[in-house]
Parts: sequence; C-alpha cells; structure tokens
Amino acid sequence: MPKEVVIVGGGIGGVYVLRNLIAKRDNVEEGLHITLIKREKSGWVSVCGLPFALRGWYEIDKTEINKPQFFLDQGVDFRTETEATRFNLAENSVTLKSGEELNYDLLVISTGRKQSVRETELDGVYTFNNEDDAKKIEAALASREVKNAFIRGRGIIGLQSAAAFAARGIKTTVLGGPPSLLPSSLDPDMGDLVKERMEQTGIRFILDRREITEIKGKDGWARSVVIGEKEEREEIPADIVIIGKWMIPEVDLAKDAGIEIGETGGVVTDRAMRVKRGRRSMSNVYAVGDCVEVVDGITHRPKLNQLASTAVVQSKVVVDNMISDIMGQPSLYSSCEYCLSPIAADVGGIIMGSVGVTTETAERAGIKTVSGKATKLTKARYFPGAKPLTLKLIFDAYTKKIIGAQMVGEATVAERVNELAVAIYAGITAEELRNMERCYDPSLALLIDVTIDAAEAAMGITAVY
Amino acid sequence: MPKEVVIVGGGIGGVYVLRNLIAKRDNVEEGLHITLIKREKSGWVSVCGLPFALRGWYEIDKTEINKPQFFLDQGVDFRTETEATRFNLAENSVTLKSGEELNYDLLVISTGRKQSVRETELDGVYTFNNEDDAKKIEAALASREVKNAFIRGRGIIGLQSAAAFAARGIKTTVLGGPPSLLPSSLDPDMGDLVKERMEQTGIRFILDRREITEIKGKDGWARSVVIGEKEEREEIPADIVIIGKWMIPEVDLAKDAGIEIGETGGVVTDRAMRVKRGRRSMSNVYAVGDCVEVVDGITHRPKLNQLASTAVVQSKVVVDNMISDIMGQPSLYSSCEYCLSPIAADVGGIIMGSVGVTTETAERAGIKTVSGKATKLTKARYFPGAKPLTLKLIFDAYTKKIIGAQMVGEATVAERVNELAVAIYAGITAEELRNMERCYDPSLALLIDVTIDAAEAAMGITAVY
Repeated sequence: MPKEVVIVGGGIGGVYVLRNLIAKRDNVEEGLHITLIKREKSGWVSVCGLPFALRGWYEIDKTEINKPQFFLDQGVDFRTETEATRFNLAENSVTLKSGEELNYDLLVISTGRKQSVRETELDGVYTFNNEDDAKKIEAALASREVKNAFIRGRGIIGLQSAAAFAARGIKTTVLGGPPSLLPSSLDPDMGDLVKERMEQTGIRFILDRREITEIKGKDGWARSVVIGEKEEREEIPADIVIIGKWMIPEVDLAKDAGIEIGETGGVVTDRAMRVKRGRRSMSNVYAVGDCVEVVDGITHRPKLNQLASTAVVQSKVVVDNMISDIMGQPSLYSSCEYCLSPIAADVGGIIMGSVGVTTETAERAGIKTVSGKATKLTKARYFPGAKPLTLKLIFDAYTKKIIGAQMVGEATVAERVNELAVAIYAGITAEELRNMERCYDPSLALLIDVTIDAAEAAMGITAVY
Repeated sequence: MPKEVVIVGGGIGGVYVLRNLIAKRDNVEEGLHITLIKREKSGWVSVCGLPFALRGWYEIDKTEINKPQFFLDQGVDFRTETEATRFNLAENSVTLKSGEELNYDLLVISTGRKQSVRETELDGVYTFNNEDDAKKIEAALASREVKNAFIRGRGIIGLQSAAAFAARGIKTTVLGGPPSLLPSSLDPDMGDLVKERMEQTGIRFILDRREITEIKGKDGWARSVVIGEKEEREEIPADIVIIGKWMIPEVDLAKDAGIEIGETGGVVTDRAMRVKRGRRSMSNVYAVGDCVEVVDGITHRPKLNQLASTAVVQSKVVVDNMISDIMGQPSLYSSCEYCLSPIAADVGGIIMGSVGVTTETAERAGIKTVSGKATKLTKARYFPGAKPLTLKLIFDAYTKKIIGAQMVGEATVAERVNELAVAIYAGITAEELRNMERCYDPSLALLIDVTIDAAEAAMGITAVY
C-alpha cells in the first residue's frame, strides 16, 4: 500500500513539500500517493514576483510558475478550489468542505496566513496578497486614468507596490506606523536611507500613528483617503488604494484540532517541523511556511518570519524526515536551524538587505550592541556598475560576535546578506571580520571593502582607504 | 625623538603599511617619522588595474592612484628611484645604493617579487608586471598595426591580457602548461569552462609542455613565435609577445641579512608578520606582500599567495603590532589568520572565482575530497542580468567541512567567493550549507540557489528546483 500524504495549502511551503516528495518518492518501496488541496484556482504562483509584474517587467500570468496540470501529470492529486474544514488527528484524516474525508499517513499543514480584508465596498480599493489581487489592480490601472495612489503599509510589499506606482508616473502616498520603514529589518537610520531614496522618486511617506478614518468615493470608485481625526485630519487624493496589513498565521483548523499554537499566533513545531499536541511532537503531522512560528537565532525567542526562503528550507526538512522515518534511515534526516531572517528586496531600484536582529530587537531581548556603519562604492569608481552601498553591522557588545547586518544600495546586496548570514551563523567577531581576506579585482570589488570599514567603525578604529 | 620607520618597497604591501601608519601616527606620543623607498618613479600604482587599461576602459595613468607628492605632503619621506643594497639588522639600518645609511627603529620589508626578463632584444616583446610595461605595450599597439598577439602564461594577468587583445580584435594565442587554465585556483573541469568561454572570443589556447624555442623578427620587431622542437615544432605569427613567468619572491637582501627564507622561497614570518632570524622572531622587523610566504588554511603548509588582498591584510596587522608595541597596549594587537586565497578575476567578461584549495591541492596534502557541482541562473530568468553560474564546492570527505569553492559566471562571483571564504573559515559542512536560509527576491536571487544544488550534489542528493 502506498503511503498517503496529504498537504493542506498550496503556497510556497506546501508546493515545496510536494516538489521534494516528487523528487524522492522513487526511494520509497511501497510508493507515495500525494494529495495537495488549495483554495485558489491556480497552480504554483510566485507571489514574490507579483510586485514586479505590477512594475511592468512581465505579465502577471508569468508568475504562475506551474499550472495544476504540471502536478497532475506527475501523478499528484492536486486539487484546486478545495477547502479543508477539519483535521481529525485521532483518525488520521482531513475533512473537506465537500464532506469528503481524506485519510493520511502523513499530514502537512501549510495553511499560510490570513489575508487582510477590504474595509470598503468602493472599487479602486484592494489588498495585495495574491495573483487575483494583482490582476484586479492591473485591470484598474488599465481601465481608467489613475493619478493618485495610496498605500497603507510600509512593509516590503507596500514599498514594492509604491515603487511600481511611482514607476508608472502615479503620485503615491504610503501610510505606515512610526518611526521608519521596514522596522523589523532595518534600524531607523537605515530605514530612513530607503525612505530618502524612495522620496526622490516622488513617493510621499506618512509615518505616524494616524490610521485611515474614511475612504471617500465618487460613482462607486475611490477618490480620496482620510487619515487621522480632528486637527490631525488629512484628506489625500487616491484613485487607487492598497490596504496591506500585518499578516496573521492561518491556524484555525490546527487550533481546533488541539495542535499547540505559540505566543506569536503561529503553529509551534520541533526542529523536524513536527507539530505538538499536549507536550509531545506528533510523528506524522508537520507544519511549514507562514502558518508556523520560528525561533530567532539571536534572541532565542519565537517569532513570525513568513518568508518564502524560510518555507523552502522547512519543506526540505519535512521531506527529509518523512523519508528518513519511512525508510528507517536516520542518515536521511535533517533539522531546521534557528532563524536568521536573511532578506533582500528591490524597492524600485534601491535594494535593502537585512539579516539577524536590529538594534532594537537586540536591546529588547537583553543584548547590548555595538554597531559600525560605512558607505562606500562596491568597486573602483571608474568601472561600470560602481554603486554606493551603506552597510551597518551590529555586534553583541559582550561576545563581539556579529548578530545583525543591514544595508542599502543598488548592487551586491543579496550576496552580502548571504555572506553575513554565514558569519552570524558561525559567530564571527568584528575582529575576525576586519582581518579576513576578501577577493579583489578592481572591476569587481574595492581593495578594502565596506565590510572592513563597518567592522572597524564598530571597533572604534579609523578606516584606511 | 620620533620613532623612525623605514619601509623598503612601494608595492601594495609597503604602501598599505604607510597608509595605516599615517592613519594611526597621531596616537603615538613621540611621533613617527616614516621613510618609504622604492625603485620605480611612480607613487602608488594599482597594478591589478593595468589589464583593464589595456582593455581600453581607462588611461594607464589612472592606475597611479597616488602620486609621490600625495605622501610627501603628509610629511612622509617618500623616495622614488631609490634602491636599498643592504639590511644591517645588528645596527638597525638600511644601506642605500647611494651609500646613504637610513637608521630605523622599525623596518618593513616589502620587496615584492622578481620581474620576469625579456629573453630577446626584439621590439614587440614585453613583460607585463607594472605600468612601464603597460605603457610600452600600449605604445606598440598605437604605433603599428598589430594583427597577432602571443602570450606566454595562463595565469590571471596572462588571461586578462589575452582578453584585452581579443577585445581589440587582435588574433591571440596563449601558451601555458598542461592541463588547464589557472590550475592553482581551478580544477581542470572548471578551468576548461573558462577556456571554452574565452575560446568563443577567438582566443587560441595551447596548454602543453612546449616552450618558446625562438622569437623571430623582421627589422628588429617580433614577427612570430616558434614553440616546441622537431615534429612538435610550430610557428605562430605574433606582432606582439607578452612573456609572463612564475613570479619569484624578491628576498636577496633579506637572505643576505640572515633572515629566514622558507621552502617556497618567500620570507618566513610569524602571525604578527615579524621576520625570523635564528629561531626567533625579530621584534622590530616585519615583512609583507609578495616577498613573504603564507600558511594555507587547509593544507597547513607554506605557500606563495602574492595577492593584493593578502598584502592589505598583512599591512594592517603589521601596523596594529607596531602601534601596540610602541604604546604598550596589547588591546591594539592583531594577527594574521591562515590563508584561504579568495580570488575573483574578470577575464574578458567571464568571471572566475576561487577560494580554499583545489581538489588536486587537497589530494596532494593528504585530504580526500567529495565535491558537488551545479549550474544555474543567478536570478529568475525574466529579470535583467540573470546569468548562468557554475559552482563547484569541495568538501573534506571525513569532516564534511567545506575546504574549497570554484566558480565561473558573469555576475555575483566576487561576493560568493567572500561568502564561501567565511564558510571555509568557519568550518561549515555540506549539510549546514544545504539547509542554511538564503535571502530571496526574484529580481535578485533564485528561491533555491546554485549553492544548495552544489551542496546537494556533493551529498548525493537530487536537487529540487
């Protein structure tokens, strides 16, 4: 009898569990029968690619990397527009909205996060969580002359949407909380760099405690957004409004089934990504992706990460463990490391990067920090593509180990985030980072990289050029 | 009385000792008086930038980053066209060719490497070690129609020169030893990738044991190069010939003074870059740059590194130690780590990178290896700048720790070399590298990076896309 695997949710976590299972199922003698159920109509969509579609780099349809048929052709029971209503953990089954019961040997919960809701019936007001949202926004931009856009939310998707609107010549306003942009990834000084650069493209930022009090419309279509009350009241023209909200893990079914939910609202897992019920990990129920909470590598506390890159690693671990268990081979096992949240994002040609903790997160976790910051070109001035990069390195004041890095630039950001992720993972100190040799070719790098200058700044040493 | 510092040699090692001293001299109560002597006429020249000048990216003069006056203005006794003939270590003095004696409290030996010699009196035959060579080559190219170039040497400078000639439409032949390009940095499979890509630009490579037997000329100017003898003899047209040879550390004065020379022919130093005489390190004599040997971090054996990036780190350590000693503050001290030789080089738009040991170097040092190789785009196909990159990761078969990385691509190479340098330094395993989270933005990176695929290949796991 083939083992039955049921995956609930077709976001990146669920789809990567599926992909890993497909790659490895030939190793399982009795075979694997895999069912994936998802609410949406589409196959696998790269949600991270949507803001770039809005920026006009490619059609929205391009972000559907695999159609459902792709998985059906591989013998997977890939069910779209299908909803689970109950996990029956004692009976090893999942109840669907249709009433059907799916029995499983192994269950994977990848239910993602709750989508934020539109708070108005006006046209021109959208959320931006998936390809349907992107298509509605694109259709709105195509159907009428949009002069003013308003975005509620100063996270990555909010900023990337703002960049897309600005690139289309739309006057754009972003409303977010204080004090600065992307506060979970960037200290205020670094967030302000992103803000200044984006302001140069004409975007206006309002970063204070005011909230939307009213969205005014005309003929059923948004016309302006009112924020704040009384003397703080301001009305801002807006033909299109994007509402981005803090994303809450979608854990209702898991909670109803008695699965442990953590202090952050996400499903608690062990390092093999197995969920807990009572005090023990369940051997045949896994959870991955935006619905789970992770453990931060610096604060040692749970947090929500909700990154595609996190989901991909978790999915690999889930499948390693499933296969290891089925085959009775511990050598096939793997486990998740603590989370360092490496992030890079292009927000309209400006690229921000971050890994580890911010100064504020560290301080809140009881860690005193020493930081160093430097700005330098990425290569010699007379080579094409030489761009300034500002790098901030954050060290534990006691151990001197690097615990965070933030940067704003136009090139080399993603690769530097990955380098510094390894450095944080390995517990490299400022002293080590400063004296570490880096490769040099004047067309590719400076002889003394900005990393050295930032490390020296943290050590109180004057940089030598 | 100010401390007298004498630096012998004005290459990158000497100049960076000088720069670090200038930055720190205000900390020294009694003051520092610094003399730098160098044979050449110029100030500080970025030798690594010369091949790009030849490629036409900028004028040769641009590579003189600082003129002598720059250092004179800062109170440094910067003496060009000056030669030392003797180190009198017992008397703490250096004898100059002029007969003058320079007394020192602290001596820095940065005598570099011996330049290879022209073996003919014909015009059109050059070495390529410094800006004078570059100017001669540029003048030759300007003065006559050069149709054919011949380069002896398949190291980085040889390849960069070949790329420069090919870019100017000159039919170029490169002669080097077997079996492949850049053998100290790349395994044959990776060296062959560079070769194939360069061959597409019309460059011919001859990689065998044949040597130049004759350079034929006409009216005093090179016309062809004859390689090999008897039935292996071949005559190759060449209006311009570059002779690149293995570089030998310039250690004659050090040797005469009784300073220890290592098995590689370079000056032996301790981790503070102090030279040895008898069995002890000398407290006031340092050596840096191409004239010293380093200790390889994987083989644990001495080697010659001769990289600008190595010299820069060594210079910093020298000055940290000088200042620490003078001020009696151990907290200012630093030391050199073992050497991992991170290299990146643009050879005509193709970029090669390497760090750690090659498979052959590891095997020769008694280390069995497991390696994994993968080729992938650097970001999603539909984003500008998505380029294929081939990455090979080499692991110690016993510890599973990464000990080497090699790559060939068109982007992200230098940054990846630096990332993998940290990984090697920290002793990261294939298993760790595979499950480590990497940042993701489709415009900047793939969801599953080539690093993961290469690590999985080494682990015998099928990659999942």
